[in-house]
Amino acid sequence: MSPKIIFDTDPGIDDATALLFLNACRNIELLGITTVFGNGNIDTVTRNARYLKRRFSIAAPIARGADRALGLSASPPPIHVHGINGLGDVPIDENDLPPLDPRPAHRFIIDQVHAFPHEVTLLAVGRLTNLALALSEDPTIAKRVKEVVIMGGAFGLAGPNGNVTPVAEANIIGDPHAADLVFAASWPVTAVGLDVTRQVIMRPADIEILARDGGDAGRFIAEISRHYMTYHRRFGLDGFYVHDSTAMAFVLDRSLFETRKGPIRVATDGIAIGQTIMKDRSTFHPPGDWDDAPDQSIATSVDRDGVRRLLMEAYLTPDAAHLRTA
Amino acid sequence: MSPKIIFDTDPGIDDATALLFLNACRNIELLGITTVFGNGNIDTVTRNARYLKRRFSIAAPIARGADRALGLSASPPPIHVHGINGLGDVPIDENDLPPLDPRPAHRFIIDQVHAFPHEVTLLAVGRLTNLALALSEDPTIAKRVKEVVIMGGAFGLAGPNGNVTPVAEANIIGDPHAADLVFAASWPVTAVGLDVTRQVIMRPADIEILARDGGDAGRFIAEISRHYMTYHRRFGLDGFYVHDSTAMAFVLDRSLFETRKGPIRVATDGIAIGQTIMKDRSTFHPPGDWDDAPDQSIATSVDRDGVRRLLMEAYLTPDAAHLRTA
Repeated sequence: MSPKIIFDTDPGIDDATALLFLNACRNIELLGITTVFGNGNIDTVTRNARYLKRRFSIAAPIARGADRALGLSASPPPIHVHGINGLGDVPIDENDLPPLDPRPAHRFIIDQVHAFPHEVTLLAVGRLTNLALALSEDPTIAKRVKEVVIMGGAFGLAGPNGNVTPVAEANIIGDPHAADLVFAASWPVTAVGLDVTRQVIMRPADIEILARDGGDAGRFIAEISRHYMTYHRRFGLDGFYVHDSTAMAFVLDRSLFETRKGPIRVATDGIAIGQTIMKDRSTFHPPGDWDDAPDQSIATSVDRDGVRRLLMEAYLTPDAAHLRTA
Repeated sequence: MSPKIIFDTDPGIDDATALLFLNACRNIELLGITTVFGNGNIDTVTRNARYLKRRFSIAAPIARGADRALGLSASPPPIHVHGINGLGDVPIDENDLPPLDPRPAHRFIIDQVHAFPHEVTLLAVGRLTNLALALSEDPTIAKRVKEVVIMGGAFGLAGPNGNVTPVAEANIIGDPHAADLVFAASWPVTAVGLDVTRQVIMRPADIEILARDGGDAGRFIAEISRHYMTYHRRFGLDGFYVHDSTAMAFVLDRSLFETRKGPIRVATDGIAIGQTIMKDRSTFHPPGDWDDAPDQSIATSVDRDGVRRLLMEAYLTPDAAHLRTA
């Protein structure tokens, strides 16, 4: 059975790439797209989602989500990463954008989970605010979701590896209280964090292939990636991380990953704010803050070439023919 | 020139072992012993220091130090690690203990630093409260100390590695505010943390050798180690970590270690409290809490056999003859 996915996202260059990847996969069912502030403010990212829906004929409805974090004051969006318009400042035609679902994102999530009990995968690649709001409004969804897969966190498996602070990743530090609630709930969460997503890199040569053979979607990814590559070049990377698409790949083929289980808490105060900390149950510690947290999973290693191949093939094989003829 | 050392300590089994090691080394000059609450309360650890001074004819004066952390309420001492009397519950004769220096520890430190400008090494193997108090009372000492070497911290170089929480080490979580002040000061600090100290293990066979050939000090270490080994056996270790002696070994022979430099901050709030976080200056991060902190050093790897050899030889070579004849 094709997984039923709600894609919770803040497009964002990386998010747009993952969404086009989802749209190119015939073996999933995209129930809906829910937006959340993050890579841009909520107006920007929701506009971008609608633009992508129209341009790439995405059937799934879009529900607009949270415009701020649960427990933090607003901070400016990272325009140095995703551009002022959130899509690498590639011109966006704002005419005739498709309508939104009337429900707020968290309500949309709750309704879909009840409509398809034990079938819905929440794939969340931005701040976890919508998921936390859904949990708060209806805690019963935790037992009815199939699973939650997030792009988020930096578990420091080979040393501190945050991208905002030495220990914090952007999606989690953007709403640490929401993330702590999501990890604490009794649904199965897998965090695909920087520990693995920084291993999956799209190279300029990949982008050339997409631009040439990937149809309109491939050309679009190549266009928006230019800004993203400039950002990555600042720290010496020739290409860019496909964080969100790597989380997507986990949903499609988890044999490409190794995982580990343990209770996860998120620092919500002080200089470590936004850090995701998993306790290793095999290590002795005195009683503490992790004792009541359920076991969740993190990705600990990835077959980087396998994920890249999965991504490229989604655009370039017959499955993606409808995109290439666009 | 022999390094002039002030040993700031909370004996403690591990501390007593390091102090006997210091006392067995003829190529250092022990200016003083300053005590700090930690492995026991301040009365217990100061009593233990005085006992060790009398029993092993240690010439250095002892100054009593802080009885509480700068910013935390008191917590019970770890009797499961060091026993009720702090020395593995080996009976201690409390008669005729030698007198204390009249000064509080932090004042003793200040005076010695000014007496021997640019010559004093502060070797601190407990909470950093005395050092922080000395800095607060006389900030000019920072420029007059030769260096500060601490046993403390867990820098997560190969994944989260705290011993109290997943990310916090005992000496730092015991007074995180003091530690943050010590790392922020403009003196050179090297933290010898769990990343390396957990690699240096005294085995039962080593203890047998010490008991047989190490004179009174060797026998005493073997006696107090029994309790410590029982504790370590709970998590499957046959032997025990010599955390404090490893920091001591760094002072004596730093060629046994590799180090790395960067600004260090300590989490003083929330679930990550007590975590030591070094920022890697080669990684791009937005402006943040590490920007104004000076570069300090951490030990990143250790020649474990080299340190063990250094420790054993201190007791067993002619240099330690005065102990073996006791």
